[in-house]
Amino acid sequence: MSLIITGKNTVTEAIKTNRKIHELYIQRGTNKDVLSLVENKSIKVVELDKQKMNEICLRNHQGLGAKIDDYKYLTIEDALAKPKENKVFVMLDQLEDPHNLGAILRSADAFKIDGIIIPKNRSVGLTGTVAKVSTGAIEHVDVISVTNLNQTIKTLKDNGFWVAGTDMDTDQTIHDINVDTNLCIVIGSEGKGISRLVKQNCDYVVKIPMDGHVNSLNASVSTGIVLYEVFRKKGE
Amino acid sequence: MSLIITGKNTVTEAIKTNRKIHELYIQRGTNKDVLSLVENKSIKVVELDKQKMNEICLRNHQGLGAKIDDYKYLTIEDALAKPKENKVFVMLDQLEDPHNLGAILRSADAFKIDGIIIPKNRSVGLTGTVAKVSTGAIEHVDVISVTNLNQTIKTLKDNGFWVAGTDMDTDQTIHDINVDTNLCIVIGSEGKGISRLVKQNCDYVVKIPMDGHVNSLNASVSTGIVLYEVFRKKGE
Repeated sequence: MSLIITGKNTVTEAIKTNRKIHELYIQRGTNKDVLSLVENKSIKVVELDKQKMNEICLRNHQGLGAKIDDYKYLTIEDALAKPKENKVFVMLDQLEDPHNLGAILRSADAFKIDGIIIPKNRSVGLTGTVAKVSTGAIEHVDVISVTNLNQTIKTLKDNGFWVAGTDMDTDQTIHDINVDTNLCIVIGSEGKGISRLVKQNCDYVVKIPMDGHVNSLNASVSTGIVLYEVFRKKGE
Repeated sequence: MSLIITGKNTVTEAIKTNRKIHELYIQRGTNKDVLSLVENKSIKVVELDKQKMNEICLRNHQGLGAKIDDYKYLTIEDALAKPKENKVFVMLDQLEDPHNLGAILRSADAFKIDGIIIPKNRSVGLTGTVAKVSTGAIEHVDVISVTNLNQTIKTLKDNGFWVAGTDMDTDQTIHDINVDTNLCIVIGSEGKGISRLVKQNCDYVVKIPMDGHVNSLNASVSTGIVLYEVFRKKGE
């Protein structure tokens, strides 16, 4: 299956990273700089008027779109096999909002995360909207699709990973995360947090220290803060 | 002028903080727990069927809405007059996305920020969407509306504030922010960052350390990380 990705950053990053592009859509008179990017690549460029562009690429396309194959997911075995010490994975427990997933991909790229684990069902996947919101970060982050999060936690533990859940109901904070090991951080869904069984299966649970009235953060913001803290601690 | 706010967290937080509510809209058969919240308050409760509810409250209302007066802004003078040592303000330079502003209000509440400064024109204001995304945090964060950001920076400096801009093009990082003083952190817009003149007027400029390919974060994520770091350093 194929999908249409849109937006200047998303499409140019796909070109630069040599993703296979079936058709590149450019709104007539716009994005002339993009033509030079594809000069020596065998990409079929289709110039469209504004109305046709809107039909094919929907909105927010910034005059640029591309038809590509569906984004590929890694298996957990593929991800574990990659040669790297002290990997950091992020497991998203039933995240539903494509804007949050897109923003999390940007943070994962910025803070050198080795893979995002999402459940096959009951979660948002790698759609055109996610790609757009990721502003191209989707090209640089491994996304791992798994059937069962609890089974995956067991696999990770068997492979020397420590699994840290995030939740408000704990005394340990994200400063207490041990980053000198293989690590998987589990993030809950927007409304409900981490599911009960997943939380039980974590090695330990940490919270972001905060002191407000509402005491909850947007899911992509809290993920960004946790990943920043891990990146910061790794650099110490 | 009045506006309609929607969503369980947003509306219940407005009730709990005694905001004046002209009419409370409840979708018939839902949100029974909210009725006990308004029992001893003189709030006009209007029960609506689903279709009428959708008409008045638009979507994503979770069966709950309220008509309230427009949210009030503080002047910079009001905000400066509040008795508090070492205040932290956040100045948003032309933020456009209401979802980002809503998420930033959540972070500002969580990390005890003393005020969000936004320009009167050329910025998103406190709309129903912002309130909804803030999940009630809008009730707890002072929002300061100003005519001119550069004039406001001057006023802040005259009142003993240090003004720290955020941008990628600098060697100093957010670890270098001095939190033992009155502080204003300036955050740029989604696409363009901080405007040139505003950046020139900052006392210093800091970046979030990162090491990715795309090297940019969602505006609400980067703001959340900066505010977290300030809160963390204040607690040290």
